[in-house]
Amino acid sequence: MIKDKLMKQIVAKQSYLCVGLDSDIEKLPAGMPKTAQGVIDFNKAIIDATAPYCVSYKINTAFYESLGVKGWQAMEETLEHIPSTHFTIADAKRGDIGNTSAQYAKTFFEVLPFDAITVAPYMGKDSIEPFLAYSNKCTIVLGLTSNIGSQNFEQQKLASGQFLYESVLEQVARKIIPAHFILVPGVGAQGGSLAEVTKYGKNNEVGLLVNASRAIIFASNGNDFAEKAALAAKDYAQEMKALLI
Amino acid sequence: MIKDKLMKQIVAKQSYLCVGLDSDIEKLPAGMPKTAQGVIDFNKAIIDATAPYCVSYKINTAFYESLGVKGWQAMEETLEHIPSTHFTIADAKRGDIGNTSAQYAKTFFEVLPFDAITVAPYMGKDSIEPFLAYSNKCTIVLGLTSNIGSQNFEQQKLASGQFLYESVLEQVARKIIPAHFILVPGVGAQGGSLAEVTKYGKNNEVGLLVNASRAIIFASNGNDFAEKAALAAKDYAQEMKALLI
Repeated sequence: MIKDKLMKQIVAKQSYLCVGLDSDIEKLPAGMPKTAQGVIDFNKAIIDATAPYCVSYKINTAFYESLGVKGWQAMEETLEHIPSTHFTIADAKRGDIGNTSAQYAKTFFEVLPFDAITVAPYMGKDSIEPFLAYSNKCTIVLGLTSNIGSQNFEQQKLASGQFLYESVLEQVARKIIPAHFILVPGVGAQGGSLAEVTKYGKNNEVGLLVNASRAIIFASNGNDFAEKAALAAKDYAQEMKALLI
Repeated sequence: MIKDKLMKQIVAKQSYLCVGLDSDIEKLPAGMPKTAQGVIDFNKAIIDATAPYCVSYKINTAFYESLGVKGWQAMEETLEHIPSTHFTIADAKRGDIGNTSAQYAKTFFEVLPFDAITVAPYMGKDSIEPFLAYSNKCTIVLGLTSNIGSQNFEQQKLASGQFLYESVLEQVARKIIPAHFILVPGVGAQGGSLAEVTKYGKNNEVGLLVNASRAIIFASNGNDFAEKAALAAKDYAQEMKALLI
Protein backbone atom coordinates (compact mmCIF):
# COMPACT_ATOMS: atom_id res chain seq x y z
CA MET A 1 0.00 0.00 0.00
CA ILE A 2 1.20 3.46 -0.89
CA LYS A 3 1.00 4.71 2.70
CA ASP A 4 3.17 1.86 3.95
CA LYS A 5 5.72 2.64 1.24
CA LEU A 6 5.87 6.23 2.47
CA MET A 7 6.20 5.21 6.10
CA LYS A 8 9.03 2.81 5.26
CA GLN A 9 10.88 5.50 3.32
CA ILE A 10 10.53 7.90 6.24
CA VAL A 11 12.07 5.39 8.62
CA ALA A 12 14.87 4.49 6.18
CA LYS A 13 15.72 8.09 5.36
CA GLN A 14 15.06 9.48 8.85
CA SER A 15 13.38 12.40 7.13
CA TYR A 16 9.69 13.27 7.09
CA LEU A 17 10.15 16.33 4.95
CA CYS A 18 7.67 17.26 2.22
CA VAL A 19 8.72 20.03 -0.16
CA GLY A 20 5.80 22.20 -1.23
CA LEU A 21 5.95 23.32 -4.85
CA ASP A 22 3.96 26.53 -4.38
CA SER A 23 5.79 27.85 -7.41
CA ASP A 24 4.36 31.36 -7.63
CA ILE A 25 5.33 32.72 -11.03
CA GLU A 26 5.93 36.17 -9.51
CA LYS A 27 8.55 34.79 -7.14
CA LEU A 28 10.65 32.84 -9.63
CA PRO A 29 14.37 33.68 -9.40
CA ALA A 30 15.60 36.73 -11.25
CA GLY A 31 16.32 35.90 -14.88
CA MET A 32 13.85 33.02 -15.07
CA PRO A 33 10.95 33.67 -17.46
CA LYS A 34 7.64 34.31 -15.66
CA THR A 35 5.85 31.74 -17.78
CA ALA A 36 4.52 28.21 -17.37
CA GLN A 37 7.78 26.99 -18.94
CA GLY A 38 9.69 28.97 -16.33
CA VAL A 39 7.71 27.18 -13.61
CA ILE A 40 8.53 23.80 -15.16
CA ASP A 41 12.26 24.58 -15.36
CA PHE A 42 12.26 25.96 -11.81
CA ASN A 43 10.43 22.93 -10.42
CA LYS A 44 12.73 20.45 -12.15
CA ALA A 45 15.80 22.17 -10.70
CA ILE A 46 14.23 22.29 -7.23
CA ILE A 47 13.25 18.61 -7.38
CA ASP A 48 16.69 17.50 -8.54
CA ALA A 49 18.34 19.52 -5.77
CA THR A 50 16.08 18.54 -2.87
CA ALA A 51 15.19 14.90 -3.61
CA PRO A 52 17.99 13.47 -1.42
CA TYR A 53 16.59 15.21 1.67
CA CYS A 54 12.83 14.80 1.40
CA VAL A 55 10.39 11.94 1.02
CA SER A 56 7.51 13.79 -0.60
CA TYR A 57 6.49 16.67 -2.86
CA LYS A 58 3.26 18.61 -2.54
CA ILE A 59 1.93 20.52 -5.54
CA ASN A 60 -0.32 23.42 -4.61
CA THR A 61 -2.78 23.29 -7.51
CA ALA A 62 -3.79 26.97 -7.18
CA PHE A 63 -0.43 28.21 -8.44
CA TYR A 64 -0.82 26.12 -11.60
CA GLU A 65 -4.53 26.74 -12.26
CA SER A 66 -3.86 30.48 -12.21
CA LEU A 67 -1.75 29.99 -15.35
CA GLY A 68 -4.71 28.46 -17.20
CA VAL A 69 -4.30 25.62 -19.67
CA LYS A 70 -0.51 25.98 -19.70
CA GLY A 71 -0.50 25.75 -15.92
CA TRP A 72 -2.14 22.33 -16.10
CA GLN A 73 0.54 21.27 -18.55
CA ALA A 74 3.16 22.53 -16.07
CA MET A 75 1.51 20.51 -13.30
CA GLU A 76 1.63 17.38 -15.50
CA GLU A 77 5.29 17.87 -16.40
CA THR A 78 6.26 18.59 -12.82
CA LEU A 79 4.51 15.47 -11.56
CA GLU A 80 6.26 13.36 -14.21
CA HIS A 81 9.63 14.68 -13.08
CA ILE A 82 9.21 13.63 -9.43
CA PRO A 83 11.15 10.38 -8.73
CA SER A 84 8.90 7.35 -8.16
CA THR A 85 10.53 6.91 -4.74
CA HIS A 86 8.82 10.09 -3.54
CA PHE A 87 5.24 10.43 -2.33
CA THR A 88 3.25 12.98 -4.35
CA ILE A 89 0.43 15.12 -2.96
CA ALA A 90 -2.05 17.26 -4.89
CA ASP A 91 -2.79 20.05 -2.45
CA ALA A 92 -6.16 20.77 -4.04
CA LYS A 93 -8.53 20.98 -1.04
CA ARG A 94 -11.44 19.71 -3.10
CA GLY A 95 -14.78 18.47 -1.76
CA ASP A 96 -18.28 18.39 -3.23
CA ILE A 97 -21.33 16.13 -3.48
CA GLY A 98 -20.61 12.51 -4.37
CA ASN A 99 -20.80 12.54 -8.17
CA THR A 100 -18.64 15.68 -8.29
CA SER A 101 -16.05 14.47 -5.78
CA ALA A 102 -15.78 11.33 -7.94
CA GLN A 103 -14.70 13.57 -10.82
CA TYR A 104 -12.09 15.28 -8.64
CA ALA A 105 -10.81 11.88 -7.53
CA LYS A 106 -10.49 10.86 -11.17
CA THR A 107 -8.63 14.11 -11.92
CA PHE A 108 -5.99 13.79 -9.20
CA PHE A 109 -5.67 10.00 -8.95
CA GLU A 110 -5.96 8.99 -12.62
CA VAL A 111 -5.55 11.86 -15.09
CA LEU A 112 -2.79 13.27 -12.89
CA PRO A 113 -1.52 10.19 -11.04
CA PHE A 114 -0.79 11.68 -7.63
CA ASP A 115 -0.42 9.40 -4.61
CA ALA A 116 -2.56 11.64 -2.41
CA ILE A 117 -4.91 14.60 -2.41
CA THR A 118 -5.95 17.07 0.26
CA VAL A 119 -9.73 17.42 0.70
CA ALA A 120 -11.98 19.82 2.58
CA PRO A 121 -14.35 18.15 5.06
CA TYR A 122 -17.13 20.76 5.29
CA MET A 123 -19.68 18.82 3.18
CA GLY A 124 -19.23 15.61 5.16
CA LYS A 125 -18.71 11.92 4.68
CA ASP A 126 -20.16 11.37 1.21
CA SER A 127 -18.03 14.21 -0.15
CA ILE A 128 -14.90 12.31 0.98
CA GLU A 129 -15.87 8.72 0.18
CA PRO A 130 -15.26 8.87 -3.60
CA PHE A 131 -11.58 9.56 -2.83
CA LEU A 132 -11.40 6.67 -0.35
CA ALA A 133 -12.69 4.32 -3.04
CA TYR A 134 -9.14 4.36 -4.46
CA SER A 135 -7.56 1.84 -2.11
CA ASN A 136 -3.96 2.47 -3.22
CA LYS A 137 -4.18 6.26 -2.81
CA CYS A 138 -4.20 8.50 0.25
CA THR A 139 -6.83 11.07 1.13
CA ILE A 140 -5.63 13.83 3.44
CA VAL A 141 -8.52 15.60 5.17
CA LEU A 142 -8.15 19.15 6.49
CA GLY A 143 -8.30 19.24 10.27
CA LEU A 144 -6.84 22.25 12.03
CA THR A 145 -5.13 24.74 9.74
CA SER A 146 -2.50 27.29 10.69
CA ASN A 147 -4.22 30.45 9.43
CA ILE A 148 -5.99 33.04 11.57
CA GLY A 149 -9.33 32.09 10.01
CA SER A 150 -9.17 28.71 11.76
CA GLN A 151 -10.79 30.58 14.66
CA ASN A 152 -13.97 31.22 12.66
CA PHE A 153 -15.13 27.63 12.30
CA GLU A 154 -12.44 24.99 12.91
CA GLN A 155 -11.92 26.23 16.47
CA GLN A 156 -15.57 26.72 17.27
CA LYS A 157 -16.74 24.73 20.27
CA LEU A 158 -19.47 22.22 19.56
CA ALA A 159 -22.34 21.40 21.89
CA SER A 160 -20.53 18.09 22.54
CA GLY A 161 -17.61 20.00 24.09
CA GLN A 162 -15.26 19.21 21.20
CA PHE A 163 -13.86 21.76 18.81
CA LEU A 164 -15.10 21.34 15.24
CA TYR A 165 -11.64 20.26 14.05
CA GLU A 166 -11.56 17.60 16.78
CA SER A 167 -14.86 16.25 15.54
CA VAL A 168 -13.47 16.19 12.00
CA LEU A 169 -10.35 14.33 13.11
CA GLU A 170 -12.37 11.89 15.18
CA GLN A 171 -14.92 11.13 12.50
CA VAL A 172 -12.26 10.82 9.81
CA ALA A 173 -9.72 8.85 11.82
CA ARG A 174 -12.02 6.53 13.71
CA LYS A 175 -14.91 6.04 11.40
CA ILE A 176 -13.42 6.43 7.95
CA ILE A 177 -9.72 5.56 8.08
CA PRO A 178 -8.36 3.30 10.81
CA ALA A 179 -4.63 3.93 10.15
CA HIS A 180 -3.47 7.42 9.35
CA PHE A 181 -0.66 9.93 9.27
CA ILE A 182 -0.60 13.68 9.77
CA LEU A 183 0.44 16.23 7.16
CA VAL A 184 1.71 19.32 8.93
CA PRO A 185 2.06 22.51 6.94
CA GLY A 186 3.09 25.82 8.44
CA VAL A 187 6.67 24.97 9.42
CA GLY A 188 8.77 27.55 7.63
CA ALA A 189 7.28 30.78 6.32
CA GLN A 190 4.17 30.27 8.43
CA GLY A 191 6.29 30.08 11.59
CA GLY A 192 5.58 26.68 13.18
CA SER A 193 8.14 24.84 15.32
CA LEU A 194 9.48 21.55 13.97
CA ALA A 195 10.54 20.40 17.45
CA GLU A 196 7.07 20.90 18.91
CA VAL A 197 5.31 19.33 15.94
CA THR A 198 7.54 16.29 16.25
CA LYS A 199 7.20 16.05 20.02
CA TYR A 200 3.42 16.11 19.99
CA GLY A 201 2.68 14.57 16.58
CA LYS A 202 5.05 11.63 16.28
CA ASN A 203 3.87 8.06 16.77
CA ASN A 204 5.59 4.64 16.65
CA GLU A 205 6.13 4.69 12.90
CA VAL A 206 6.77 8.46 12.87
CA GLY A 207 3.32 9.06 11.26
CA LEU A 208 4.25 12.63 10.34
CA LEU A 209 4.91 14.44 7.12
CA VAL A 210 6.02 18.05 7.60
CA ASN A 211 5.74 20.43 4.70
CA ALA A 212 7.82 23.50 3.98
CA SER A 213 7.27 25.42 0.77
CA ARG A 214 8.50 29.01 0.51
CA ALA A 215 11.30 28.52 3.07
CA ILE A 216 12.87 25.95 0.75
CA ILE A 217 11.94 26.76 -2.83
CA PHE A 218 12.45 30.51 -2.47
CA ALA A 219 15.48 30.31 -0.16
CA SER A 220 17.36 32.37 -2.73
CA ASN A 221 16.17 34.63 -5.53
CA GLY A 222 19.45 34.36 -7.41
CA ASN A 223 21.15 31.89 -9.73
CA ASP A 224 21.98 29.75 -6.70
CA PHE A 225 18.28 29.09 -5.97
CA ALA A 226 18.58 25.30 -6.41
CA GLU A 227 21.72 25.09 -4.30
CA LYS A 228 20.14 27.17 -1.52
CA ALA A 229 16.95 25.09 -1.70
CA ALA A 230 19.06 21.96 -1.26
CA LEU A 231 20.79 23.50 1.78
CA ALA A 232 17.45 24.51 3.32
CA ALA A 233 16.03 21.02 2.72
CA LYS A 234 19.18 19.45 4.14
CA ASP A 235 18.86 21.59 7.28
CA TYR A 236 15.29 20.40 7.81
CA ALA A 237 16.31 16.79 7.20
CA GLN A 238 19.18 17.01 9.70
CA GLU A 239 16.94 18.58 12.33
CA MET A 240 14.37 15.83 11.73
CA LYS A 241 17.00 13.12 12.09
CA ALA A 242 18.12 14.61 15.39
CA LEU A 243 14.54 14.85 16.65
CA LEU A 244 13.87 11.19 15.85
CA ILE A 245 16.76 9.87 17.94
CA MET B 1 -22.32 46.11 -9.75
CA ILE B 2 -22.56 42.60 -11.12
CA LYS B 3 -24.96 41.43 -8.41
CA ASP B 4 -27.35 44.30 -9.13
CA LYS B 5 -27.25 43.43 -12.83
CA LEU B 6 -28.25 39.86 -12.00
CA MET B 7 -31.06 40.96 -9.67
CA LYS B 8 -32.45 43.32 -12.32
CA GLN B 9 -32.39 40.56 -14.93
CA ILE B 10 -34.23 38.23 -12.56
CA VAL B 11 -36.98 40.78 -12.01
CA ALA B 12 -37.25 41.61 -15.73
CA LYS B 13 -37.32 37.98 -16.84
CA GLN B 14 -39.30 36.68 -13.86
CA SER B 15 -36.91 33.73 -13.84
CA TYR B 16 -34.29 32.90 -11.27
CA LEU B 17 -33.11 29.78 -13.05
CA CYS B 18 -29.45 28.82 -13.23
CA VAL B 19 -28.54 26.00 -15.60
CA GLY B 20 -25.75 23.82 -14.27
CA LEU B 21 -23.30 22.63 -16.91
CA ASP B 22 -22.27 19.43 -15.11
CA SER B 23 -21.44 18.04 -18.51
CA ASP B 24 -20.30 14.55 -17.61
CA ILE B 25 -18.60 13.11 -20.66
CA GLU B 26 -20.13 9.69 -19.95
CA LYS B 27 -23.64 11.11 -20.14
CA LEU B 28 -23.36 12.98 -23.44
CA PRO B 29 -26.17 12.13 -25.89
CA ALA B 30 -25.77 9.03 -28.02
CA GLY B 31 -23.72 9.77 -31.11
CA MET B 32 -21.80 12.66 -29.56
CA PRO B 33 -18.06 12.00 -29.18
CA LYS B 34 -17.02 11.42 -25.56
CA THR B 35 -14.21 13.96 -25.85
CA ALA B 36 -13.54 17.50 -24.69
CA GLN B 37 -14.72 18.68 -28.13
CA GLY B 38 -17.94 16.73 -27.58
CA VAL B 39 -18.42 18.58 -24.29
CA ILE B 40 -17.89 21.93 -26.03
CA ASP B 41 -20.40 21.13 -28.79
CA PHE B 42 -22.91 19.82 -26.25
CA ASN B 43 -22.57 22.88 -24.02
CA LYS B 44 -22.96 25.31 -26.92
CA ALA B 45 -26.17 23.60 -28.03
CA ILE B 46 -27.51 23.55 -24.44
CA ILE B 47 -26.65 27.24 -23.92
CA ASP B 48 -28.28 28.30 -27.21
CA ALA B 49 -31.42 26.32 -26.35
CA THR B 50 -31.85 27.38 -22.72
CA ALA B 51 -30.66 31.01 -22.70
CA PRO B 52 -34.17 32.45 -23.12
CA TYR B 53 -35.38 30.78 -19.92
CA CYS B 54 -32.51 31.22 -17.48
CA VAL B 55 -30.48 34.10 -16.08
CA SER B 56 -27.32 32.23 -15.18
CA TYR B 57 -25.03 29.32 -15.99
CA LYS B 58 -22.98 27.40 -13.46
CA ILE B 59 -19.94 25.45 -14.62
CA ASN B 60 -19.03 22.58 -12.32
CA THR B 61 -15.25 22.67 -12.64
CA ALA B 62 -14.79 19.02 -11.62
CA PHE B 63 -16.29 17.72 -14.86
CA TYR B 64 -13.77 19.74 -16.86
CA GLU B 65 -10.69 19.14 -14.71
CA SER B 66 -11.21 15.40 -15.06
CA LEU B 67 -10.50 15.81 -18.79
CA GLY B 68 -7.10 17.33 -18.04
CA VAL B 69 -5.63 20.13 -20.15
CA LYS B 70 -8.30 19.72 -22.84
CA GLY B 71 -10.98 20.02 -20.17
CA TRP B 72 -9.64 23.46 -19.22
CA GLN B 73 -9.81 24.44 -22.86
CA ALA B 74 -13.43 23.21 -22.91
CA MET B 75 -14.19 25.31 -19.83
CA GLU B 76 -12.68 28.38 -21.56
CA GLU B 77 -14.66 27.85 -24.76
CA THR B 78 -17.89 27.20 -22.87
CA LEU B 79 -17.49 30.35 -20.82
CA GLU B 80 -16.84 32.40 -23.96
CA HIS B 81 -20.06 31.08 -25.49
CA ILE B 82 -22.32 32.21 -22.64
CA PRO B 83 -24.14 35.45 -23.57
CA SER B 84 -22.93 38.50 -21.64
CA THR B 85 -26.49 38.99 -20.37
CA HIS B 86 -26.15 35.85 -18.25
CA PHE B 87 -24.46 35.58 -14.87
CA THR B 88 -21.64 33.00 -14.84
CA ILE B 89 -20.64 30.92 -11.84
CA ALA B 90 -17.54 28.75 -11.41
CA ASP B 91 -18.76 26.00 -9.10
CA ALA B 92 -15.27 25.30 -7.84
CA LYS B 93 -15.70 25.16 -4.03
CA ARG B 94 -12.17 26.41 -3.47
CA GLY B 95 -10.72 27.72 -0.21
CA ASP B 96 -7.20 27.80 1.22
CA ILE B 97 -4.84 30.06 3.16
CA GLY B 98 -4.71 33.66 1.93
CA ASN B 99 -1.90 33.57 -0.64
CA THR B 100 -3.35 30.41 -2.17
CA SER B 101 -6.95 31.65 -2.24
CA ALA B 102 -5.60 34.74 -4.03
CA GLN B 103 -4.36 32.42 -6.79
CA TYR B 104 -7.76 30.75 -7.04
CA ALA B 105 -9.43 34.16 -7.23
CA LYS B 106 -7.08 35.09 -10.06
CA THR B 107 -7.91 31.82 -11.84
CA PHE B 108 -11.67 32.18 -11.77
CA PHE B 109 -12.06 35.96 -11.88
CA GLU B 110 -9.25 36.89 -14.31
CA VAL B 111 -7.84 33.98 -16.30
CA LEU B 112 -11.35 32.58 -16.65
CA PRO B 113 -13.51 35.70 -16.30
CA PHE B 114 -16.46 34.27 -14.35
CA ASP B 115 -18.84 36.62 -12.52
CA ALA B 116 -18.88 34.43 -9.42
CA ILE B 117 -17.24 31.47 -7.69
CA THR B 118 -18.40 29.07 -5.01
CA VAL B 119 -16.03 28.77 -2.04
CA ALA B 120 -15.77 26.42 0.94
CA PRO B 121 -15.81 28.16 4.34
CA TYR B 122 -14.02 25.59 6.51
CA MET B 123 -10.71 27.52 6.77
CA GLY B 124 -12.42 30.76 7.78
CA LYS B 125 -12.39 34.43 7.01
CA ASP B 126 -8.91 34.93 5.56
CA SER B 127 -9.50 32.04 3.14
CA ILE B 128 -12.51 33.93 1.70
CA GLU B 129 -11.21 37.51 1.75
CA PRO B 130 -9.00 37.28 -1.37
CA PHE B 131 -12.16 36.58 -3.39
CA LEU B 132 -14.00 39.51 -1.82
CA ALA B 133 -11.17 41.83 -2.87
CA TYR B 134 -12.70 41.72 -6.37
CA SER B 135 -15.47 44.28 -5.86
CA ASN B 136 -17.22 43.59 -9.17
CA LYS B 137 -17.39 39.82 -8.66
CA CYS B 138 -19.56 37.63 -6.43
CA THR B 139 -18.34 35.09 -3.90
CA ILE B 140 -20.84 32.38 -3.04
CA VAL B 141 -20.01 30.67 0.25
CA LEU B 142 -21.22 27.15 1.01
CA GLY B 143 -23.79 27.15 3.79
CA LEU B 144 -26.09 24.15 4.10
CA THR B 145 -25.71 21.61 1.32
CA SER B 146 -28.28 19.05 0.19
CA ASN B 147 -26.19 15.89 0.56
CA ILE B 148 -26.46 13.36 3.39
CA GLY B 149 -22.97 14.30 4.62
CA SER B 150 -24.28 17.71 5.68
CA GLN B 151 -25.19 15.91 8.92
CA ASN B 152 -21.53 15.26 9.75
CA PHE B 153 -20.43 18.85 10.23
CA GLU B 154 -22.74 21.48 8.72
CA GLN B 155 -25.62 20.32 10.91
CA GLN B 156 -23.59 19.88 14.07
CA LYS B 157 -24.86 21.93 16.97
CA LEU B 158 -22.39 24.46 18.34
CA ALA B 159 -21.99 25.36 21.99
CA SER B 160 -23.69 28.66 21.11
CA GLY B 161 -26.88 26.77 20.19
CA GLN B 162 -26.49 27.47 16.48
CA PHE B 163 -25.85 24.86 13.85
CA LEU B 164 -22.45 25.20 12.18
CA TYR B 165 -24.06 26.24 8.87
CA GLU B 166 -26.01 28.95 10.70
CA SER B 167 -22.78 30.29 12.12
CA VAL B 168 -21.27 30.27 8.62
CA LEU B 169 -24.27 32.13 7.17
CA GLU B 170 -24.27 34.64 10.00
CA GLN B 171 -20.55 35.36 9.86
CA VAL B 172 -20.55 35.59 6.10
CA ALA B 173 -23.75 37.59 5.67
CA ARG B 174 -23.43 40.00 8.58
CA LYS B 175 -19.74 40.47 8.97
CA ILE B 176 -18.35 39.99 5.51
CA ILE B 177 -21.06 40.81 2.95
CA PRO B 178 -23.92 43.15 3.84
CA ALA B 179 -26.14 42.43 0.79
CA HIS B 180 -26.46 38.90 -0.47
CA PHE B 181 -28.44 36.37 -2.46
CA ILE B 182 -28.86 32.62 -2.08
CA LEU B 183 -27.78 30.02 -4.63
CA VAL B 184 -29.95 26.94 -4.22
CA PRO B 185 -28.83 23.71 -5.82
CA GLY B 186 -30.65 20.43 -5.42
CA VAL B 187 -33.87 21.26 -7.26
CA GLY B 188 -34.15 18.64 -9.97
CA ALA B 189 -32.18 15.38 -9.80
CA GLN B 190 -31.44 15.96 -6.11
CA GLY B 191 -35.19 16.19 -5.35
CA GLY B 192 -35.78 19.64 -3.77
CA SER B 193 -39.10 21.49 -4.08
CA LEU B 194 -39.06 24.73 -6.05
CA ALA B 195 -42.25 25.95 -4.36
CA GLU B 196 -40.83 25.50 -0.87
CA VAL B 197 -37.47 27.03 -1.78
CA THR B 198 -39.24 30.08 -3.18
CA LYS B 199 -41.67 30.39 -0.27
CA TYR B 200 -38.95 30.36 2.37
CA GLY B 201 -36.03 31.83 0.44
CA LYS B 202 -37.47 34.76 -1.50
CA ASN B 203 -36.93 38.35 -0.38
CA ASN B 204 -38.04 41.74 -1.75
CA GLU B 205 -35.78 41.60 -4.78
CA VAL B 206 -36.23 37.81 -5.18
CA GLY B 207 -32.67 37.23 -3.91
CA LEU B 208 -32.69 33.64 -5.12
CA LEU B 209 -30.91 31.75 -7.84
CA VAL B 210 -32.07 28.16 -8.23
CA ASN B 211 -29.86 25.71 -10.04
CA ALA B 212 -30.85 22.60 -11.96
CA SER B 213 -28.21 20.62 -13.81
CA ARG B 214 -28.94 17.04 -14.80
CA ALA B 215 -32.73 17.54 -14.96
CA ILE B 216 -32.19 20.06 -17.76
CA ILE B 217 -29.01 19.19 -19.63
CA PHE B 218 -29.65 15.44 -19.66
CA ALA B 219 -33.44 15.67 -20.16
CA SER B 220 -32.97 13.55 -23.28
CA ASN B 221 -30.18 11.24 -24.41
CA GLY B 222 -31.21 11.46 -28.07
CA ASN B 223 -30.75 13.87 -30.96
CA ASP B 224 -33.45 16.07 -29.41
CA PHE B 225 -31.32 16.75 -26.29
CA ALA B 226 -31.18 20.53 -26.87
CA GLU B 227 -34.92 20.77 -27.59
CA LYS B 228 -35.75 18.75 -24.48
CA ALA B 229 -33.35 20.84 -22.40
CA ALA B 230 -35.14 23.97 -23.62
CA LEU B 231 -38.52 22.47 -22.65
CA ALA B 232 -37.24 21.51 -19.19
CA ALA B 233 -35.78 25.00 -18.67
CA LYS B 234 -39.00 26.58 -19.91
CA ASP B 235 -41.01 24.50 -17.42
CA TYR B 236 -38.83 25.72 -14.55
CA ALA B 237 -39.10 29.32 -15.77
CA GLN B 238 -42.90 29.13 -16.00
CA GLU B 239 -43.17 27.61 -12.53
CA MET B 240 -40.90 30.37 -11.20
CA LYS B 241 -42.97 33.08 -12.83
CA ALA B 242 -46.14 31.64 -11.26
CA LEU B 243 -44.46 31.46 -7.84
CA LEU B 244 -43.38 35.11 -8.02
CA ILE B 245 -46.92 36.46 -8.59
